[in-house]
Amino acid sequence: MSNGFGKLFTITSFGESHGKCVGIIVDGCPAGLPITVEDIQREVNKRKPGASMAATTRVEEDKVEVLSGVFNGKSTGAPVCLLLWNKDIDSSEYERIRFLPRPGHADYTAFMKYGGFNDFRGGGRFSGRITATFVMAGAIAKKVLGLLSIEVLAHTVEIGGIKAKPKEFDEIKHNVDQNPLRCADLEAAKAMSDVIEKVKAEGDSVGGIVEGIALNVPVGLGEPVFDTLDGDLAKALFAIPAVKGVEFGSGFSAAGRRGSENNDPFILRDGKIVTVTNNAGGILGGISNGMPIVVRVVVKPTSSIAKSQETVDLMNMENTTLSVKGRHDICIVPRAVIVVESMMAVTICDFAIRAGLIPRVLK
Amino acid sequence: MSNGFGKLFTITSFGESHGKCVGIIVDGCPAGLPITVEDIQREVNKRKPGASMAATTRVEEDKVEVLSGVFNGKSTGAPVCLLLWNKDIDSSEYERIRFLPRPGHADYTAFMKYGGFNDFRGGGRFSGRITATFVMAGAIAKKVLGLLSIEVLAHTVEIGGIKAKPKEFDEIKHNVDQNPLRCADLEAAKAMSDVIEKVKAEGDSVGGIVEGIALNVPVGLGEPVFDTLDGDLAKALFAIPAVKGVEFGSGFSAAGRRGSENNDPFILRDGKIVTVTNNAGGILGGISNGMPIVVRVVVKPTSSIAKSQETVDLMNMENTTLSVKGRHDICIVPRAVIVVESMMAVTICDFAIRAGLIPRVLK
Amino acid sequence: MSNGFGKLFTITSFGESHGKCVGIIVDGCPAGLPITVEDIQREVNKRKPGASMAATTRVEEDKVEVLSGVFNGKSTGAPVCLLLWNKDIDSSEYERIRFLPRPGHADYTAFMKYGGFNDFRGGGRFSGRITATFVMAGAIAKKVLGLLSIEVLAHTVEIGGIKAKPKEFDEIKHNVDQNPLRCADLEAAKAMSDVIEKVKAEGDSVGGIVEGIALNVPVGLGEPVFDTLDGDLAKALFAIPAVKGVEFGSGFSAAGRRGSENNDPFILRDGKIVTVTNNAGGILGGISNGMPIVVRVVVKPTSSIAKSQETVDLMNMENTTLSVKGRHDICIVPRAVIVVESMMAVTICDFAIRAGLIPRVLK
Amino acid sequence: MSNGFGKLFTITSFGESHGKCVGIIVDGCPAGLPITVEDIQREVNKRKPGASMAATTRVEEDKVEVLSGVFNGKSTGAPVCLLLWNKDIDSSEYERIRFLPRPGHADYTAFMKYGGFNDFRGGGRFSGRITATFVMAGAIAKKVLGLLSIEVLAHTVEIGGIKAKPKEFDEIKHNVDQNPLRCADLEAAKAMSDVIEKVKAEGDSVGGIVEGIALNVPVGLGEPVFDTLDGDLAKALFAIPAVKGVEFGSGFSAAGRRGSENNDPFILRDGKIVTVTNNAGGILGGISNGMPIVVRVVVKPTSSIAKSQETVDLMNMENTTLSVKGRHDICIVPRAVIVVESMMAVTICDFAIRAGLIPRVLK
Repeated sequence: MSNGFGKLFTITSFGESHGKCVGIIVDGCPAGLPITVEDIQREVNKRKPGASMAATTRVEEDKVEVLSGVFNGKSTGAPVCLLLWNKDIDSSEYERIRFLPRPGHADYTAFMKYGGFNDFRGGGRFSGRITATFVMAGAIAKKVLGLLSIEVLAHTVEIGGIKAKPKEFDEIKHNVDQNPLRCADLEAAKAMSDVIEKVKAEGDSVGGIVEGIALNVPVGLGEPVFDTLDGDLAKALFAIPAVKGVEFGSGFSAAGRRGSENNDPFILRDGKIVTVTNNAGGILGGISNGMPIVVRVVVKPTSSIAKSQETVDLMNMENTTLSVKGRHDICIVPRAVIVVESMMAVTICDFAIRAGLIPRVLK
Repeated sequence: MSNGFGKLFTITSFGESHGKCVGIIVDGCPAGLPITVEDIQREVNKRKPGASMAATTRVEEDKVEVLSGVFNGKSTGAPVCLLLWNKDIDSSEYERIRFLPRPGHADYTAFMKYGGFNDFRGGGRFSGRITATFVMAGAIAKKVLGLLSIEVLAHTVEIGGIKAKPKEFDEIKHNVDQNPLRCADLEAAKAMSDVIEKVKAEGDSVGGIVEGIALNVPVGLGEPVFDTLDGDLAKALFAIPAVKGVEFGSGFSAAGRRGSENNDPFILRDGKIVTVTNNAGGILGGISNGMPIVVRVVVKPTSSIAKSQETVDLMNMENTTLSVKGRHDICIVPRAVIVVESMMAVTICDFAIRAGLIPRVLK
Repeated sequence: MSNGFGKLFTITSFGESHGKCVGIIVDGCPAGLPITVEDIQREVNKRKPGASMAATTRVEEDKVEVLSGVFNGKSTGAPVCLLLWNKDIDSSEYERIRFLPRPGHADYTAFMKYGGFNDFRGGGRFSGRITATFVMAGAIAKKVLGLLSIEVLAHTVEIGGIKAKPKEFDEIKHNVDQNPLRCADLEAAKAMSDVIEKVKAEGDSVGGIVEGIALNVPVGLGEPVFDTLDGDLAKALFAIPAVKGVEFGSGFSAAGRRGSENNDPFILRDGKIVTVTNNAGGILGGISNGMPIVVRVVVKPTSSIAKSQETVDLMNMENTTLSVKGRHDICIVPRAVIVVESMMAVTICDFAIRAGLIPRVLK
Repeated sequence: MSNGFGKLFTITSFGESHGKCVGIIVDGCPAGLPITVEDIQREVNKRKPGASMAATTRVEEDKVEVLSGVFNGKSTGAPVCLLLWNKDIDSSEYERIRFLPRPGHADYTAFMKYGGFNDFRGGGRFSGRITATFVMAGAIAKKVLGLLSIEVLAHTVEIGGIKAKPKEFDEIKHNVDQNPLRCADLEAAKAMSDVIEKVKAEGDSVGGIVEGIALNVPVGLGEPVFDTLDGDLAKALFAIPAVKGVEFGSGFSAAGRRGSENNDPFILRDGKIVTVTNNAGGILGGISNGMPIVVRVVVKPTSSIAKSQETVDLMNMENTTLSVKGRHDICIVPRAVIVVESMMAVTICDFAIRAGLIPRVLK
């Protein structure tokens, strides 16, 4: 397991879904940053199941605990260890299906890689619950980015085939907290709800797309040729369990475009160089160009479904079927929104520090 | 600049498009691997402009030179430094447009990040020419992967809106070297050629999609939660200049699917556990599941176009227009194919070594 | 702060002396390793103040808690988070001297580096208490090394000018646990005790030297030219607060020797190549040569002394004096022994895994 | 092989003693730094054999070549690849002793680790010649450190039992270039010469000690608890082939000291906080304290000696003897001086950049 990410602003993750806790260490935070439990709790709460129809009914109280690195309300420069104790755990179902790998989940690969020694309960180390720790780290990263007025925001742009209409940043920001689907297009959100309800009735699940935006990112973040801003953002986002694709700006649609359509012309606007369009998603040559960073990730349909599925009994090595019981999100997309936001914040924060833009000590 | 990639099998890149050379250091290659200049040259040649209509007419002779790490025809365990001397260079055009950033290129971000000290000639450090060094590293990685019978293959699946029909692996392998577009669907390849010719006449360019496949990857490669196989593959692929998106398996199409469609059921086949479908692209929970790794990258249309584009004169800070002259690929996709293949090979090789599957010394 | 160490077997440290806890994450442990709290507790107990005269009277109960990575008594392959909750804390003295940096301590450098935001209580992040977490990590590393029959052992060889006579490995192993000074030469141990008692009466402190030995290390560990076995061992050992020097084999005495004296001749013994002497301390060219790894570290006299010392009042920027009150080790050397052993074990374990000698899954 | 060092200012080494070349890539140099071949050549020349009696008669012309990263006389922000082509090579002697590992050298460990595939000629990758590349990297690091007025200087303090008397920094600086032994105590230098001559006549070799000093290092460099300034300096210095020990400040002599002697009292001097003594060698808690960094390394006697030595014939697995012929330094210490200086510069430079003290672009 390689559970660390980042170069100067680093995160190290630990914990399992049904173990004692999940936690994360944030190292490299500048000293003197005001950090309260509430700051972090507020972010973690955004990951809570918001819509009863879309999300698991597991009640995660998830009270954030700060174990180190904060003193008198401020970061000390030492590693900040953040913890969520696990509660409300019923592992009996997982005992039952221990040797029946759920299609779409990491059960099979984890079993094989760790020789069956992995903690399989609730997906163990591969549970979506791990992403709650990403959100804690993201809460700190966002506070650091606030020093540069960088704002990171994610929202749902597609669920179950329903696409949201494009909205302005301010509208997205306003609307995203207003509905459980975290979609800025409220009409689309309604349609998405309908799809989810329908899918739920079928014992099935749906996927979707989350878009992340970072505003006010200064020109120059990213360290080509390998530690590119897009490359590291992608790596960070693929750490989110259900993500199967990442694209920037015009992304995959660029395949069908002409250069003259896809290139973003430079112009002077109010004495500042900007691009007329933002097909590059704010990144050229692996380096931020001052325009909004725009990234989209596809979140596959939740793997846990009530419908019967084929699988193999690993103990007896024979074909069998499986129906996953218990409380599961029909659609994980809305809860992934804050996670995408958090991983973007962590990554951009690391690059900002590498670029020397964040003082090591805040006054 | 952060020009290193990998943990145990690492590559370190250097050089500029119009400088003395471009090169790469491959560190962590097991000792005793037969390596000839020809092995590497053969791969580098695949990146050569193949179709006069699609590609630059710059004649890159590109004779591979091995500076270190190989002795008596075999790797020594020491770092292998591989070099291509630059020739056939005319930088005059770049002097002319030095302060006129080409839309879509890294000219502007490089200028800003490096304060104008960057070598701007031919895109300097941000030139596609740097990817020739990736191919040299890939040549060695492929030889290492051959020890595990892992085969990596990439091919063109879309150009200018023309999509190739799906083909079997063997057909892809056979066809990809048969046509300059590196497309396994020969009919589609013809249509792609037509598009490119048309676009060329318009002074424009087109993008496309490359698919990479890795066969025989054993179950268990990938180090979650951050050093996932998909995450590191994505990071590696975003190091290729024109790549703007990466997806695995069903990728972005999963957004519109149901879990019951997208999950890959497990079954026993010839006593081996396989999945019926491969929507996961061979990766579950960041770990290879034994099925083929399938990744697609979108390659944006070549940024250099003859058509006039808006830009800003950085010296005089005024709006102006620019027409990029010189020899440029109308479509970079066919030449990106071997680069995708190479970066996949490098990444998978690193994971195989981390997993302890490759002996440090070969007999 | 950069609180991670290692490449495949990594440790990440967190916590402060007077905060909630001190802890460490061990990542990269093979799956299937039996790990009990008792295994780790036993090692941590060795760091306990053993001799009332030499050591602090702070009673560290230090009950080890395993937060993650162990399931059904065995490692899972996931990161193992180990914790010691802080108890018996009286920080009042530290409030008093908050702006009076204690000579020899990190108070001044921490204050300057972190702008006074550092947790100064008990030395905070720079306390010797942090090394208790190294011992927890070492406990796991030792279990892993046991798979290769590698044995790591440290002992006191000098305190306050008293030098221990050289002893055979078995005698060291037998004696080291028999006396609070962890010295294999029991006569010398007695003399050391006398010195410590005398020094204590003077309100002063003494330093000494710890020697670490690793037996059965196979030939070939170490990754030159930078990740050498000696280089990484040294780096690991300098993480122990009071260490000011590290030497291997004949070490600094080699400065006065001839090559013919210092070179270790190779001979065949029982069909195996060994060296007649071991002036190299088991390392040639940064790589283990199969002989015992022998390293010595100098531990400076405890910085906290009752005697009055000059310092500067950081608040008022004026010269003043300071007498450090409270419970402090007169000589930290005996307690450093297990820490040296632990950091050696962690480092060698990482190299053994890098060398592919440890399977990822244990049967 | 792990041939990279550093986090933001990194060096990557390649090449062999009798291969085509030795080289190094310096990545992370700020853009806009004036760099000439002469700057680097001047440093490399300091490593030249200076005293015919002490040093090899191999004539290393060693003309520095800059392959990348410098444009119009200034660094571009891209990796700087520096090369020395190998000349004047006679490998015949090495063919003769290919299977006769020279005591004290890495022949045996390299043979075992790389299965005999290593380039054994001239010690190959383990040759002292590799350190010439460290000097090239050091030349750039020193220029960067010059921006902060940090000065790094090393000198010989002991050879063959002859100890130099302590001198002031300015005298050291003046004298070190005045004599081939690079010793600031000119009388001691004379005595050292005599020892070397005597030892040469005996067909033997001698070791010694080099001291490195860094002035004007600001308070706050070093990233505890693992990436300490002393820990990383030690790791860097152990990359120098013959180094067997590293100590800071009072170093190993602290073992016999009292705390009241060894602690450095703080006082105000000219409104600045300094320490009265510098037993800490400028480092407290892994962080620079503003006093001179003082480190000493022991350099073992040259392993290659004319005297007959016992070894094992690896082909026939039988005991035999060996006399190393050819041109070898009787004492490597004087040539190690510039290498110590260079590795110190590289390490401190990395920490200064991590601390955000060096702008990414120089005006």
